[in-house]
Amino acid sequence: MGTYYRTFSSKSSNKKSLTIDTLNPGIKILEYAVRGPIAIRASEIEKELQKGIKKPFNEVIKAHIGDCHAMGQTPITFIRQVLAVVSWPKLLDNPEIPSDVKFRAVEILRSCAGYSIGSYPCPLGVDVIRNHVVCYIEKRDGHPCNLDDVVLHAGAKDGIQAVLDLFDADVDGKRPGIMCSIPQYPLYSAIFSKQNMTMIKYYLNEDKNWSLEIPELERAIEDAKKTCYPRAIVVINPGNPTGQVLTRENIEAVIKFAYENNLFILADEVYQHNIYDKNCKFFSFKKVLMEMGEPYNKVELASIMSTSKGYMGECGMRGGYSEVINLDPDVKAMFFKSLYALYTPSVLGQACLDAIVNPPELGEPSYELFSKEKEAVLQSLAIRAKMVTDTFNNLEGISCNPVQGAMYAFPKINLPPKAIEKARSLGQSPDVFYTRQLLEETGISVVPGSGFGQKPGTNHFRTTTLPLPEKLTEMLQRFKEFHESFMAKYK
Amino acid sequence: MGTYYRTFSSKSSNKKSLTIDTLNPGIKILEYAVRGPIAIRASEIEKELQKGIKKPFNEVIKAHIGDCHAMGQTPITFIRQVLAVVSWPKLLDNPEIPSDVKFRAVEILRSCAGYSIGSYPCPLGVDVIRNHVVCYIEKRDGHPCNLDDVVLHAGAKDGIQAVLDLFDADVDGKRPGIMCSIPQYPLYSAIFSKQNMTMIKYYLNEDKNWSLEIPELERAIEDAKKTCYPRAIVVINPGNPTGQVLTRENIEAVIKFAYENNLFILADEVYQHNIYDKNCKFFSFKKVLMEMGEPYNKVELASIMSTSKGYMGECGMRGGYSEVINLDPDVKAMFFKSLYALYTPSVLGQACLDAIVNPPELGEPSYELFSKEKEAVLQSLAIRAKMVTDTFNNLEGISCNPVQGAMYAFPKINLPPKAIEKARSLGQSPDVFYTRQLLEETGISVVPGSGFGQKPGTNHFRTTTLPLPEKLTEMLQRFKEFHESFMAKYK
Repeated sequence: MGTYYRTFSSKSSNKKSLTIDTLNPGIKILEYAVRGPIAIRASEIEKELQKGIKKPFNEVIKAHIGDCHAMGQTPITFIRQVLAVVSWPKLLDNPEIPSDVKFRAVEILRSCAGYSIGSYPCPLGVDVIRNHVVCYIEKRDGHPCNLDDVVLHAGAKDGIQAVLDLFDADVDGKRPGIMCSIPQYPLYSAIFSKQNMTMIKYYLNEDKNWSLEIPELERAIEDAKKTCYPRAIVVINPGNPTGQVLTRENIEAVIKFAYENNLFILADEVYQHNIYDKNCKFFSFKKVLMEMGEPYNKVELASIMSTSKGYMGECGMRGGYSEVINLDPDVKAMFFKSLYALYTPSVLGQACLDAIVNPPELGEPSYELFSKEKEAVLQSLAIRAKMVTDTFNNLEGISCNPVQGAMYAFPKINLPPKAIEKARSLGQSPDVFYTRQLLEETGISVVPGSGFGQKPGTNHFRTTTLPLPEKLTEMLQRFKEFHESFMAKYK
Repeated sequence: MGTYYRTFSSKSSNKKSLTIDTLNPGIKILEYAVRGPIAIRASEIEKELQKGIKKPFNEVIKAHIGDCHAMGQTPITFIRQVLAVVSWPKLLDNPEIPSDVKFRAVEILRSCAGYSIGSYPCPLGVDVIRNHVVCYIEKRDGHPCNLDDVVLHAGAKDGIQAVLDLFDADVDGKRPGIMCSIPQYPLYSAIFSKQNMTMIKYYLNEDKNWSLEIPELERAIEDAKKTCYPRAIVVINPGNPTGQVLTRENIEAVIKFAYENNLFILADEVYQHNIYDKNCKFFSFKKVLMEMGEPYNKVELASIMSTSKGYMGECGMRGGYSEVINLDPDVKAMFFKSLYALYTPSVLGQACLDAIVNPPELGEPSYELFSKEKEAVLQSLAIRAKMVTDTFNNLEGISCNPVQGAMYAFPKINLPPKAIEKARSLGQSPDVFYTRQLLEETGISVVPGSGFGQKPGTNHFRTTTLPLPEKLTEMLQRFKEFHESFMAKYK
């Protein structure tokens, strides 16, 4: 390709430095289905509807992305008031704004150089906000947390990227291998593609509610050792796209496995507030690891959190943190150096995080409204999670594990052979064919399972559980009609 | 190293996945002097002062980083009001907030899904804000700008990283080479280190006011071709750390050079509002390239802009854009795909950018205050730029080119041989020795020239011109005393 390029470019009058042949090959191969062809087509259809083009539906329902506010969820007043005051401190004089909001805003401003959120934050995060994260983690887990282990990020993405960057190195002449569940959240595969790191796929057991089983981890790592050097394991809990919540025992087993195989654990815990099943509880990897004692409490761990999910759903703010423990001190210095050089998280994103980790306490003026708004969101999400799975499980050819947490369902569709044949004849994988038909006929956009990974020969899709109840009812009705007619057509 | 690691780790009870030997080598070698040892020491000294430790000064003056608000610059009211209203739209009812602020806030909210800045923006940027950037560029240059060429970023950093990521590829078996001025802004060298890309250094001519000379570009590229494949050229205009403003003729010559050598131009134009010399004018690379006509108007170009500099100095907001023109359409699709997968700029950072590219017009209620605040900052910056260079040029052993633009001076210090000897005996480079002494004795933190690159055998430092006039006067007085005593000591 290189030679082709040079010959071509030296003769061409439109020579380019960047051609498809000279582009970063990692960028070429990376895929991100959550914003992939289906999402793009959904936006096109929206524009077609606006132009008056007739469709069998009046509105696109975007169930392909975990974008709470876009689906009508209302922002939490307390969070937004804090943001408004730190942006324009003159609001400290506004009697409409509660005193606890003002107190928090002043605390943040005092921790910003020049009393302005426009000054550069320390790239590890604004001091007082990092301290509030420390308290939040301690309260959540009942274990100490070191300020020095907490770093703020512009959303979970930057935290995940910064941690994975550390592993971009050959060991024993082999590229690094990072274990990652299948199905997975495709940010991981995109980063692995970009950086030519090997994704070591371990399959979750769909038949046992997407359980994470140790023999499968062992199979995956043994296979992988032939071609890469396993360095870390990514666990998403609560699961995305799968919605399961790991038990404490399961987490213990993963920590043991990581210890035995000398793996760093990257715990993606951004859905820690989103637990709907009364029999489930969120345990952080940090808590379990601490309580396991020696030698497991020395395993390297990064726990990632975000402002984008939970009850707040503040995706546009780009706030988040990582707690990174048990790093070799020299490595930690290098990690910090890389953050100093390459990252500066938005101060407003951090202020949003502050409002989440340091919410109003009982007795403070914002407490009542805050609690009411928070509970309303979480209760409604729990109801919707059940609505979605109940509908799917009542349809022929669909089975769906319960949505115990997070905000997605990942049902399996048993497509008739004729549908699979039809998909193949169109050069599409069956899940892509199904979801495209769904979108074109109903306006519902979901992501084909292949975007997250699925066992060969199976077909799934991911839908969020986010449309508000009335919209969700309508969506599930449209879905039911589509599915029944699809199944009848290809029977 | 790999073998050592395995032997070590299998025997150790404290085995780590990440050790200094198995860490990304790019992270290991990268340096970022702007937040390097001097900056860290400055913060330590600040804490020592707070603890009551006696120093020959009462306060650290942080002149090592272009952090306007930290140095006491006041935020622009209009910008902050827009941010407050989009954060908490209930402020639309507040009679204290001018109608043009409200109009802009509503425009932004309408362009956000669910009327909330908490929803995910399109990763290319919120539609209406991208459109305002288009108008801003067209007004600035007098040439058309395509919406499809404008992408919003979380600060200049993310834009630079996203563009440079495209080049991370071997061509003809050679690593990519990116031409970059010396002195340079060390974000560039940090990214090159991290990604093992070659920095092709071209030296600016200090004797001719840091001019960018084509024979030097030719020398640099010819030398580099032996070891890498030159792909792009970075030009920072106005200059950081050097403060010069390129002439139109100079820009034309660079564009010709880029065309002839098939190079992509990355124009770092974040200081486009910071022009102080009445004989200088900012010309964007885009404008000059358009006016040169065929074939030069087909050169690939990315122009980067930020909310952090100019009169606004909103570093903490992380807002910015890039205009990327003449990309091969296939490459552009891949660029967009990489943004979709890996980047999501903060909506509030974008809202801040919106207020800058779409400021109040004559006749609007915010116009007068906005103009007054903006002009006050720019006029004061011009005065301070002159104060700094005048002081330096009146000192023995220091020479400093005029600060025509940006917000830094990069004076040369002709250190006496005894000082150089002393530095060597301490294992420090002479510029580091000088700036460390300066910090310990006066509390003034500046960055040694080696952090940006300088001709071998010369010594410089970078200082911002940002301390407010009274503080700057004090700083320059402290500096003068230090320098004179230093020179006397090592005469």
